[in-house]
Amino acid sequence: MNQLFPPLSRYRIILGLLLLCFASLSYARSGDPLPSWNNTAHKAAIIEFVKSVTKKGGADFVPVAERIATFDNDGTLWSEQPIAQLIFAFDRVKAEAPKHPEWKDTEPFKSVLNDDMKGVMATGEQGLMTLIMASHTGMSVEEFSQIAENWLTTAKHPKSNRLYTELVYQPMLELLSYLRANGFKTYVVSGGGIEFMRVWMEEVYGIPPEQVIGSSIKTKFELVDGKPMLMRLPELDFNDDKGGKPVAIQKFIGRKPIAAFGNSDGDLQMLQWTSANPRPHFALIVHHTDAEREVAYDRDSAIGRLDKALDEANQQGWTVVDMKQDWKRVFPFEKVK
Amino acid sequence: MNQLFPPLSRYRIILGLLLLCFASLSYARSGDPLPSWNNTAHKAAIIEFVKSVTKKGGADFVPVAERIATFDNDGTLWSEQPIAQLIFAFDRVKAEAPKHPEWKDTEPFKSVLNDDMKGVMATGEQGLMTLIMASHTGMSVEEFSQIAENWLTTAKHPKSNRLYTELVYQPMLELLSYLRANGFKTYVVSGGGIEFMRVWMEEVYGIPPEQVIGSSIKTKFELVDGKPMLMRLPELDFNDDKGGKPVAIQKFIGRKPIAAFGNSDGDLQMLQWTSANPRPHFALIVHHTDAEREVAYDRDSAIGRLDKALDEANQQGWTVVDMKQDWKRVFPFEKVK
Repeated sequence: MNQLFPPLSRYRIILGLLLLCFASLSYARSGDPLPSWNNTAHKAAIIEFVKSVTKKGGADFVPVAERIATFDNDGTLWSEQPIAQLIFAFDRVKAEAPKHPEWKDTEPFKSVLNDDMKGVMATGEQGLMTLIMASHTGMSVEEFSQIAENWLTTAKHPKSNRLYTELVYQPMLELLSYLRANGFKTYVVSGGGIEFMRVWMEEVYGIPPEQVIGSSIKTKFELVDGKPMLMRLPELDFNDDKGGKPVAIQKFIGRKPIAAFGNSDGDLQMLQWTSANPRPHFALIVHHTDAEREVAYDRDSAIGRLDKALDEANQQGWTVVDMKQDWKRVFPFEKVK
Repeated sequence: MNQLFPPLSRYRIILGLLLLCFASLSYARSGDPLPSWNNTAHKAAIIEFVKSVTKKGGADFVPVAERIATFDNDGTLWSEQPIAQLIFAFDRVKAEAPKHPEWKDTEPFKSVLNDDMKGVMATGEQGLMTLIMASHTGMSVEEFSQIAENWLTTAKHPKSNRLYTELVYQPMLELLSYLRANGFKTYVVSGGGIEFMRVWMEEVYGIPPEQVIGSSIKTKFELVDGKPMLMRLPELDFNDDKGGKPVAIQKFIGRKPIAAFGNSDGDLQMLQWTSANPRPHFALIVHHTDAEREVAYDRDSAIGRLDKALDEANQQGWTVVDMKQDWKRVFPFEKVK
């Protein structure tokens, strides 16, 4: 941890370690690298792929340096209903409102302060961007990390009343560990904010900051009283979604992945890019089919719509995970059925 | 090697392996990790720093995950007189000229085609950018890598008549190996083009594509006849120089380095950013003082000017390497004095 990533609360560190230990222990005990997955054809396809690309001398062997796996985050590694970072933006606006009396009468702030989600959504993409800029910029990179960290260790998911970092998918944590144990370098490639994600992903997913790729706002280097600072400016730098994902993968990694994991149309181009790798490759979509343990949604959802990518998955033979059928357990805190 | 990095010629691979082997063998034989460095105070300072941050239980110990070292490229790891990528741009313009008859009468192309370097320089930054866009864009990322690869395996440095990839600094190759042997992750952070550098840096420096950070042009994801492509657009994405270096370090790595290496005012902000790390840190400048074995230049040079950074190095106590005094050997092909 360096100064950009302020020490997490003891609770969070212990939680992270427990999650990782749990995955490893389960593996050691059962010999099953994916104990929270039911023994379906989808689980078998994952294991078959990993075995084939790691088998020395095999026709499908891929050298360690090229074992790049990219994961979407919202809806693929953790819950996206609601989108945590948007709730963070709303909470920041509420906290900062006393300094901005004009917000009471100005959209999109007015709707946020009145807890009127329909009103916020009616302001459209432009309104959401205004909220992001108002809540995410104007401070140094270090200050922002501290603000995000404070929120993540206290804010609770409205339905489950749990920390957002608890609402991660246990089967996917096991998949991350399994891939890394087989020489894969695991990356997050998400539409979420890169610095918002870096605050917690090392502890929760075991993914270090240099393997977190996301959307970004512009920053500027400045000497403030002789001290070097990176200030966050109210201007979008990069939107890491849809066609932006292959662009970012090439920019940050410089290699095509051999495995990619997503859950929505925002991941379609990343899955296409990965499937264009002449090396053996694997593409997987998490299909949210479990209304009881999580949320069921796909073609008509405003958040995390899965429509075009589902059609293409069927055409291309990508693995489509059925959460209800394939996952023994969804969240780490959940009892096994 | 994936398809983005077409296989290097056998010659280049052998050269790269020989360079790495030579460094390792020299170390093994002598017990000296930096055999091409004379035993000066500067060499001692490097070794002292590495020992202090890797000593378990020591006051200055830094965990492996935070041992990030960033290196400028032009003038720090290889020669920058002339700048290879600019010569590449000129050669590309000459090769493409038959398709553009209008270039004969249009600056900056006219001066390039007449080998009139003064004329090119007179077109200023705008003219150079025009040449870069004309020579570096309009093709896919894969096609560009192949073009750069072809040039790098054939083009010769005008003075030495050697491949540009031979004009790397042997003492710095040893330094890269020494740092990696001590758990450091070595990155290039250069004003050079990110995809131009990735073509050869893995073989020559042992630095994989995901640890190469540089200037970039925008790219766009497209399906061409159903095949996913990243097309290079004639628009600057990011200029990785001066204040841009800390911006890029934060964006790509997300941690402050604990060691940084540069040679010009373009590296000043990277060195300041590294020196602001609350962890023990090390900043080094390569001072080009050797007119006989390389080129001598500093405060008044148009290329690689070292002026403000030299003043700040003196104030802050950064290590300023005197190439003539500190380096036993400059290039791998050179006999030891």
